[in-house]
Amino acid sequence: MVPPGSVVPGAVVQSSVEKFLDDLASGQPTPGGGSAAALSGAMGAALVSMVCNVTLGKAGCEGAAAEMRAVLEESERLRARLTAMVAADIAAFDSIMAAYKLPKQSDADKAVRAAAIQSGLRRATETPLDIARACAEVVALARRAGEHGYLNVISDAGVAVLEAYTGLRSAALNVYINVPALKERPFAEQALAEVQKLLAFGAAETEAVYALVRGKLG
Amino acid sequence: MVPPGSVVPGAVVQSSVEKFLDDLASGQPTPGGGSAAALSGAMGAALVSMVCNVTLGKAGCEGAAAEMRAVLEESERLRARLTAMVAADIAAFDSIMAAYKLPKQSDADKAVRAAAIQSGLRRATETPLDIARACAEVVALARRAGEHGYLNVISDAGVAVLEAYTGLRSAALNVYINVPALKERPFAEQALAEVQKLLAFGAAETEAVYALVRGKLG
Repeated sequence: MVPPGSVVPGAVVQSSVEKFLDDLASGQPTPGGGSAAALSGAMGAALVSMVCNVTLGKAGCEGAAAEMRAVLEESERLRARLTAMVAADIAAFDSIMAAYKLPKQSDADKAVRAAAIQSGLRRATETPLDIARACAEVVALARRAGEHGYLNVISDAGVAVLEAYTGLRSAALNVYINVPALKERPFAEQALAEVQKLLAFGAAETEAVYALVRGKLG
Repeated sequence: MVPPGSVVPGAVVQSSVEKFLDDLASGQPTPGGGSAAALSGAMGAALVSMVCNVTLGKAGCEGAAAEMRAVLEESERLRARLTAMVAADIAAFDSIMAAYKLPKQSDADKAVRAAAIQSGLRRATETPLDIARACAEVVALARRAGEHGYLNVISDAGVAVLEAYTGLRSAALNVYINVPALKERPFAEQALAEVQKLLAFGAAETEAVYALVRGKLG
């Protein structure tokens, strides 16, 4: 059952941009920063696709066509994955909330509830981790769009990398907020180590792509 | 008249999130990076509002209530302004495109067309500059949300500052792409100087707020 005022996860990307922003701003816990992270990543992927689509339509850009087609295939796959994650983050959060509402009278109740909370926390860690992975892939694609894209839309490759990196860093915060309560420490440590690696890649690559694009804007 | 395949500016935030992403990814020039910048800023403002709204509803957070109410009033004002800018960026780009399509047979035609292009370029510089200003204000509000917000939603203050800063940097790229063709150099130089100032503030403040939030996540 969906509590009153809550957002049904799957419906969130079918709602208007304005309604999504209203829901984000409300005192309801979802959609929150995790969904914003996924949407930023999806915008980054969409802008990579735009650079490819525009470049593929331009006379004089034939030399970049094979590369742009390869990038476009990847960016559209990532856009679909990140768009789905806007809702997946809500579902993950809801699973923790549902677990906290389980009965806690008997010892058996308590054990079931504790296990459900841990399972929810694991899901609410894996989901942003997956958003971070997908965003890192978008960062890498934005470099190829920035290197080979048509000059008139090159600023969009720059916006793409910024959106993807913000999705990555935002997802990292959502990993950090859930990890302390995880009892399964090897999983928690592994998640933190992977986030650090993705952030290190994202930080260096984003600044390199931003500088590349900035340099082309005169 | 709206060319086939184009997006009607005012309708863009009434369309679904999914449709907005489809339009962003398409080979049509709008919506592009400028609209994505405004939407990032609007998401940042919405997340500041969320932190305020959640904190205002929590027992034990009464001490922060006056500050949260003051921040919320500002963040909601900025959210409305940035949401409107998603469409304003499209309208500004359309005004340049319309100017380029003006007749250029006679010398009189050419003079009218050149003036219209310059007027369009000025608008397409002022609009992202205004997005950058609004995003810088959201960055400043995110610090107050991060300092005084309820701990369980503090990661959302971190996502807010990242979204706002990405909106600012993305808008800067849209200033850079239009400025070289501007003939009115004092306006161009002034715009560039203001962008640099906003970026310097945004870079330092964003990292400070991210570190503050990260420190509270354990």
